[in-house]
Amino acid sequence: MTDIMDGIDILISEVGPRDGLQSVDSIMPTDAKKAWIKAEADAGVREIEVGSFVPPKLLPQLADTGEIVEYARTIPGLQVAALVPNFKGAENAIKAGAHKITLPLSVSETHSQANLRKTHAQVLEEVEKIVALIKTIPEGDKPHFEGGLSTAFGCTLEGHVSQSKVIEMAEKLVALGCDEVGLADTTGYANPVQVKELVIGIWAAVGRDKLTGIHLHNTRGQGLANVMAALDVGLDTLDSSLGGIGGCPFAPGASGNIITEDLVFLLDSMGLKTGIDLEKLLAVRSTLAEAIPKEALYGFTPDAGLPKGYVQMVNGGAGWGRGD
Amino acid sequence: MTDIMDGIDILISEVGPRDGLQSVDSIMPTDAKKAWIKAEADAGVREIEVGSFVPPKLLPQLADTGEIVEYARTIPGLQVAALVPNFKGAENAIKAGAHKITLPLSVSETHSQANLRKTHAQVLEEVEKIVALIKTIPEGDKPHFEGGLSTAFGCTLEGHVSQSKVIEMAEKLVALGCDEVGLADTTGYANPVQVKELVIGIWAAVGRDKLTGIHLHNTRGQGLANVMAALDVGLDTLDSSLGGIGGCPFAPGASGNIITEDLVFLLDSMGLKTGIDLEKLLAVRSTLAEAIPKEALYGFTPDAGLPKGYVQMVNGGAGWGRGD
Repeated sequence: MTDIMDGIDILISEVGPRDGLQSVDSIMPTDAKKAWIKAEADAGVREIEVGSFVPPKLLPQLADTGEIVEYARTIPGLQVAALVPNFKGAENAIKAGAHKITLPLSVSETHSQANLRKTHAQVLEEVEKIVALIKTIPEGDKPHFEGGLSTAFGCTLEGHVSQSKVIEMAEKLVALGCDEVGLADTTGYANPVQVKELVIGIWAAVGRDKLTGIHLHNTRGQGLANVMAALDVGLDTLDSSLGGIGGCPFAPGASGNIITEDLVFLLDSMGLKTGIDLEKLLAVRSTLAEAIPKEALYGFTPDAGLPKGYVQMVNGGAGWGRGD
Repeated sequence: MTDIMDGIDILISEVGPRDGLQSVDSIMPTDAKKAWIKAEADAGVREIEVGSFVPPKLLPQLADTGEIVEYARTIPGLQVAALVPNFKGAENAIKAGAHKITLPLSVSETHSQANLRKTHAQVLEEVEKIVALIKTIPEGDKPHFEGGLSTAFGCTLEGHVSQSKVIEMAEKLVALGCDEVGLADTTGYANPVQVKELVIGIWAAVGRDKLTGIHLHNTRGQGLANVMAALDVGLDTLDSSLGGIGGCPFAPGASGNIITEDLVFLLDSMGLKTGIDLEKLLAVRSTLAEAIPKEALYGFTPDAGLPKGYVQMVNGGAGWGRGD
């Protein structure tokens, strides 16, 4: 696989099929998931978190994740990511062929026990076993292993989460052998100053190459303001969800990923290349609406439409209204 | 009146009673408007655009603007702003006692003709007459006169609006004697790069003290991302609307001021002082909901509530989750 950043400035990692679908009641048929993933990849999305290897009893919406990973692997150029709650999940993800696996560690230990039913020590044990498993895989076939720092900006159960605790957990994950850590505002508590401070703090502790992405929610309408901070500090990978569906079912009141459509419009209008064709992306919404008709789809840009005369970068535009 | 910026970093100018009410069908009773303005001032809002001196035939929702300005003037410490479409409106605003009057000039001439029914030359003539009128007023009683640059980031009728045209109009307004110009994203077309470029361009042309504020819409969900750019470049006055009501009835599809509640949360969480008590501000929504029950109120922070354990700056907080 060529470098996923070739020709783009910012990688958008679509998490709707995982974070979106896990938080809605509707179960999307497997074929519809495949069509959704294919359509987003066709629109230029290069990374999709297609599911989570949790027990089907807990999240029946994602019971077909193995099949979805296998299918997504057949789409050329697509980086296939999956969430894994533990070693068992990682085994299954690797078996199915995921390019990237993320194990979430809730920095708030209360949330960790509610969400993963594990203490920090227990989660770190799983990390250790996963790293050992990956060591047995031949170079070239190894998945990229990310330790996700959930509730990094605050927790609906514990409230304040200290930056030093987040940095300590980042250090532990890297020391155990994670290729990378990810920052997640699981609860929609983040503000732009905090985003910058935390990224810089983690970089200072574990190195800049060990943190490139952030998972933001729009729970309090601050999603794209936080994206600005992420861009400003120099992150280049942003999670978002088509139609803004999703959130965390285990953190009460913490719904709402940032909306892929509005994020792509933001970046494109600023002259940052994402490789995504916004018109094609907007068209994917109908796939989603047909497959889960009972679920609300969000998005300001889809509602308002593109500005009159707007030309996307993929079609030769160079940002909107600049330098003239 | 003491300096309006004393003890705060950012001035929030509430425009709901003008930009909000002008774009909804409901007519808010005069007493409800007074209660709304009083309650926002009590929550710490220091500037409110309370109405527009347009003919009541055009905007019956704002027919009581004269009475509202007179009432708002009795609230200690509140800067009372009003929109004026022409010389006649400015005369009435000054008679009623407005501290600040804003005459909007649509940089898109097509929009100017649709919105104000005037060419640029005709608008500038009105500006000249208003400046002459203000010259006759004794020092200390003179209102602050702002020329508002509408459709500065693009127009729903013309599409692209060039930065050089915006700067040219800013120069003309200042040359004629406006105390200041204001930037307005009437159509929700702005992006953060454009915000920075345009502010810097106008500053270079007319001086930094001649542009301090921006009026942003959230039509495409980019409102707070654009606020980040405004803060970054150094603007210190931001327009917003409680409950996000409002927009421009003459620019099709261009609805939606940024939401005061979400904006205050953003600034407060970043450690920027606004002087506004967010809990009190959130309580004002019920006044609005009771007075215009048919109109939708927006706001993510009001829906989600403040983060667990969050302490506002006015109550001794220092931003959320920082430096620890």
